[in-house]
Amino acid sequence: MDYYSSKIRTLIEELSRLPGIGAKSATRMAFHLINQPQETADRLADAIRDARAGVRLCRTCCTVTDGEECPICASTARDRSTIMVVENPRDLAAYEKTGRYNGLYHVLHGAISPALGIGPSDIKLKELMMRLQDEQVKEVIIATNSTLEGETTAAYLSKLIRPLGILTSRIANGIPVGGDLESIDEVTLLRALEGRRAL
Amino acid sequence: MDYYSSKIRTLIEELSRLPGIGAKSATRMAFHLINQPQETADRLADAIRDARAGVRLCRTCCTVTDGEECPICASTARDRSTIMVVENPRDLAAYEKTGRYNGLYHVLHGAISPALGIGPSDIKLKELMMRLQDEQVKEVIIATNSTLEGETTAAYLSKLIRPLGILTSRIANGIPVGGDLESIDEVTLLRALEGRRAL
Repeated sequence: MDYYSSKIRTLIEELSRLPGIGAKSATRMAFHLINQPQETADRLADAIRDARAGVRLCRTCCTVTDGEECPICASTARDRSTIMVVENPRDLAAYEKTGRYNGLYHVLHGAISPALGIGPSDIKLKELMMRLQDEQVKEVIIATNSTLEGETTAAYLSKLIRPLGILTSRIANGIPVGGDLESIDEVTLLRALEGRRAL
Repeated sequence: MDYYSSKIRTLIEELSRLPGIGAKSATRMAFHLINQPQETADRLADAIRDARAGVRLCRTCCTVTDGEECPICASTARDRSTIMVVENPRDLAAYEKTGRYNGLYHVLHGAISPALGIGPSDIKLKELMMRLQDEQVKEVIIATNSTLEGETTAAYLSKLIRPLGILTSRIANGIPVGGDLESIDEVTLLRALEGRRAL
């Protein structure tokens, strides 16, 4: 890429590291950015720096947020007797977009995967178990992905929670096997929620 | 997007402004970035700011660069008797990638488009004509896109240059009509270069 000056080359290289961005998209994005007013480029640069610098995990549900507690856990309008367990914040967002789930969440930040060496202590399981002791929880809805890792995690969780006398349910298999929650349409997400079955 | 904290929301919004990036890609990119070490996020932020702040047009060929003159115009290894005229720096890069063109370039930064109100004075035409008076140029290869605007610009240019006694050529129509140079494979680009015809 000697035909680009070094700063533009650096920008293209950095953009290429983003997920799903190849050399061609990165080049297009880089030229778009240098053709914008400086303040537009600065706004994106600031947003990247600030979001990364400000990111924390909610002290209750472990989703990513700015402050101590996320907007959902801090809300007084949510039903605190139900916790939906998801793998990551984008899965939480997928259910929030349906506008039909009013309980709380718990974000595991991953799933158990013996193949990848990810065990129960590598995800936010301990934090979930703590919540189940402290709070008035009546049901835990396990909404991990319908993948091998997600199912493994669901089975492990239900075994762990059953002795506590809390109802444990699993979202229905309306979700295509092998698919990720975040890429599924809202109707299917709702059908899966309605069809959940006790474990 | 109330389910995301404000800094993450801001980042997703800013990323969504990039060309070809929808809400879903922007979200994926944002979560990737906040999961990276702070220094990785900072490196991208710096690259954006620096590339934009440092961008200039080469005083000779008008391509984007960091300093006074671009690496190609500054090189002593290039054949200074040939100038290839392209619409934008990515088209220049497309021909550089073939590794088979050794002349200089001139970047117009657009093409004449009566429909969009872009006239000859809105692109770097005057700068090209200046070069043709000062330098020992024997041939101008017009490599504007094979679109209506590109062809209009080519016709306008050849009329302007012919009185100067400089050979004017147009890259061949190996390039699919309606296509942009940057998305075309190198073999086709080379064939188009070889098949250029005098105007």
